[in-house]
Amino acid sequence: MLETLNEATINTETAESSTSILVDWGTTNLRAYLVDNSGEVLETRQRQQGIRNVGDGKFADAITEILKDWDSTCPVLMSGMIGSAQGWHEVPYVNCPSSIEDIAHVLTPISDNPRYSIVPGVLYQAPDEMFDVMRGEEVQIFGALDLSKQKDAVLCLPGTHSKWAYVKGGVLESFSTSMTGEIYSILKTHSILGALMSDGPDDEAAFNKGLERSGAEGGLLHHLFSTRTEGLFDQIRPEGLPSYMSGILLGHELRNSAPSELNGNPVLLVSEGILGQKYMSAFEYFGIPVQLVSAEDATVRGLSLLQNIVATKGKK
Amino acid sequence: MLETLNEATINTETAESSTSILVDWGTTNLRAYLVDNSGEVLETRQRQQGIRNVGDGKFADAITEILKDWDSTCPVLMSGMIGSAQGWHEVPYVNCPSSIEDIAHVLTPISDNPRYSIVPGVLYQAPDEMFDVMRGEEVQIFGALDLSKQKDAVLCLPGTHSKWAYVKGGVLESFSTSMTGEIYSILKTHSILGALMSDGPDDEAAFNKGLERSGAEGGLLHHLFSTRTEGLFDQIRPEGLPSYMSGILLGHELRNSAPSELNGNPVLLVSEGILGQKYMSAFEYFGIPVQLVSAEDATVRGLSLLQNIVATKGKK
Repeated sequence: MLETLNEATINTETAESSTSILVDWGTTNLRAYLVDNSGEVLETRQRQQGIRNVGDGKFADAITEILKDWDSTCPVLMSGMIGSAQGWHEVPYVNCPSSIEDIAHVLTPISDNPRYSIVPGVLYQAPDEMFDVMRGEEVQIFGALDLSKQKDAVLCLPGTHSKWAYVKGGVLESFSTSMTGEIYSILKTHSILGALMSDGPDDEAAFNKGLERSGAEGGLLHHLFSTRTEGLFDQIRPEGLPSYMSGILLGHELRNSAPSELNGNPVLLVSEGILGQKYMSAFEYFGIPVQLVSAEDATVRGLSLLQNIVATKGKK
Repeated sequence: MLETLNEATINTETAESSTSILVDWGTTNLRAYLVDNSGEVLETRQRQQGIRNVGDGKFADAITEILKDWDSTCPVLMSGMIGSAQGWHEVPYVNCPSSIEDIAHVLTPISDNPRYSIVPGVLYQAPDEMFDVMRGEEVQIFGALDLSKQKDAVLCLPGTHSKWAYVKGGVLESFSTSMTGEIYSILKTHSILGALMSDGPDDEAAFNKGLERSGAEGGLLHHLFSTRTEGLFDQIRPEGLPSYMSGILLGHELRNSAPSELNGNPVLLVSEGILGQKYMSAFEYFGIPVQLVSAEDATVRGLSLLQNIVATKGKK
C-alpha cells in the first residue's frame, strides 16, 4: 500500500516535467495525444474539429478546450493543415530533399502563444517543375521509418490525397500526390456513375476486376466509364459498383506510383482500418511486397522524434 | 410575279410529300430540323428540353409542342438518349461492327405513335469484355463520314462523354468513351481544385501547359493535383486554372485515344463552337492532323441518310 502510494507520488512528480502533448490537426479532424517521456501514449482525444470546422479562426479556443485538465505547462507540438494559410498560423514549407533534422530545425512557435509550435510541411519540385506539397504526412513518414527501422524506403500514405514518398538514407528525396480519395468521393456523389450505385459491403471480386481493368487500353477517363456499362449490362450488381470504381482508381495510383524495382524491400503502407485493408489487397493483387504501419502510431512516433530532437538540442 | 407565285405553289405542293423531320433528342437538349428531300434544312428549332427535363414521361406532348405548325404527316426520325431506358421508348443497341445499313434496318417506331421512329444506339464489347455504348453519336459518325467523303477514318466526338470511333470501309468497328467533359465539370464544381479557380477567358498558355503535363510521370490522378500547386505557388493565376485543368484532361484523352498511325488521314473532329476550338488547339499542339466537321451538320446528314435508306427500301 505504501509502495503503491510512493509510485503514484513519483509518477505525479515526473509527469510535471516529462509529459508532452502531440497534436495531429488536419482538415477534418483534431487528435491530441498526451505522451510520457518514453513516447508512450497516456491518453488520446479526438474531435471532428478539423481546421475547416473551427469557426472564426478560434484555434486557440479549440485547442484549449480539447486539452483541458491535461498538463498545462508542457510543450504542444502540432502537425497538419493547422500550418496552412487556412490554419492557425501559416508555416513555410521545407524543401526536398529533407531529413527529420531539417524539419526539427524550423518548428515554428505561435508568436503570441509560444507554448504551441507547428511542424512545417514539405515542398517538392520535380525536374519538370511540377510542385507537390504535404502537411502532416512528413511526420508520419519519419515516424514510419523509425517504427520499421528502415532508412531506404518507398512509402504509400493513402487518403483523400494519397502521398507516395521516396526515401534514401533517411532523407525524404521526393514525393507525389494522387487525388484518389477525393476523386472517388466526388464521382460517387456527383457523377452519372454514382446514379447506378447502391451502398453495400465491399465486393472483392468487383474490386479485383477494377484493379485488372486499370491496366487496359484507353486510360483512366475511359476505364471509369466502364463503371456505368458494368452496371447497365448487369455484369456487376449496384452494391458492387463502388468497389469496382475503387479498384480502377487504386489500380491507377499503384501502377503509376509504385517503382518497378524495390530491391526486395516492402513498400511501407502507412494507413489503418478499412482503407488500409483495401490498399493491402491491391498491393497483394499486383504482387508488390508491402508492410503495414499504423498511421496513428507513425504520427505519434514522428512527433515524438521531433520533440526529442528539439529537447536534446535545448540541453546541449 | 406570276413565276414567283408558281414557284411558291410548287414548293407548297412538294412540301406535302417530300419534307421530313429529324430530331436530335439528348439528355439536356431537344433539337428539331425540318428538311426537304435534298437534305436541305428549311427550319431549325431548339429547346432545353432534354429527356432529363421532360416531366412525367410526357415525351409525346413535348415533341408535338416543338413541331407545331410544321408538316404534321411526314415521318419524324429521332436519335439520342430518347431511345434509352430513361427516354420515350427503350431501343436495343446494335452491335459493332455496324454499317449505316445495319442501323437503318432496325429503326424502331413508337408503338402507339408509328409516325415517330428512334435510331438505336450502338454497343461495342472490347476483347477484354469491357462494354461501351453510344446513343446519338452513331448518327453523327455516319453523317461526318459522308460529309468528308471518307470510308476509313478515326473520329473524335468531344462532349460530356467524349467518343472516339474507328471506322474501316464505312463500317464502325469499335469505339471508346472518355468521361472528359463530366470529370472537368465535377472537379470544377465540387473538388478542392475548383476552390482556387476564377472564371475568365480561355488562357492558351495555361491550356498548353496542361497538355504538356499530361505526358509527365505519375498519371492523371497526380497531374490533376498540380492544378492546386500551380495556383498555390502563383504559377498560373486563378482565371487560368480552368484552362490548365482542361489541358490536362484533353491531353490524357488524346494521348490515350488517338492512334499512333493515321496513314496520312486527319482525325475527323465532330464538334463546334468553343469546345471544337479547344480540341482543334489540342490536336495542333500534339501535331495530329485534324479536320473539323460541324456536329450539327453531321447529325442532320446522318439522320437524312438513314431516312433515305428507309425511303428507298420502301419504294423497292
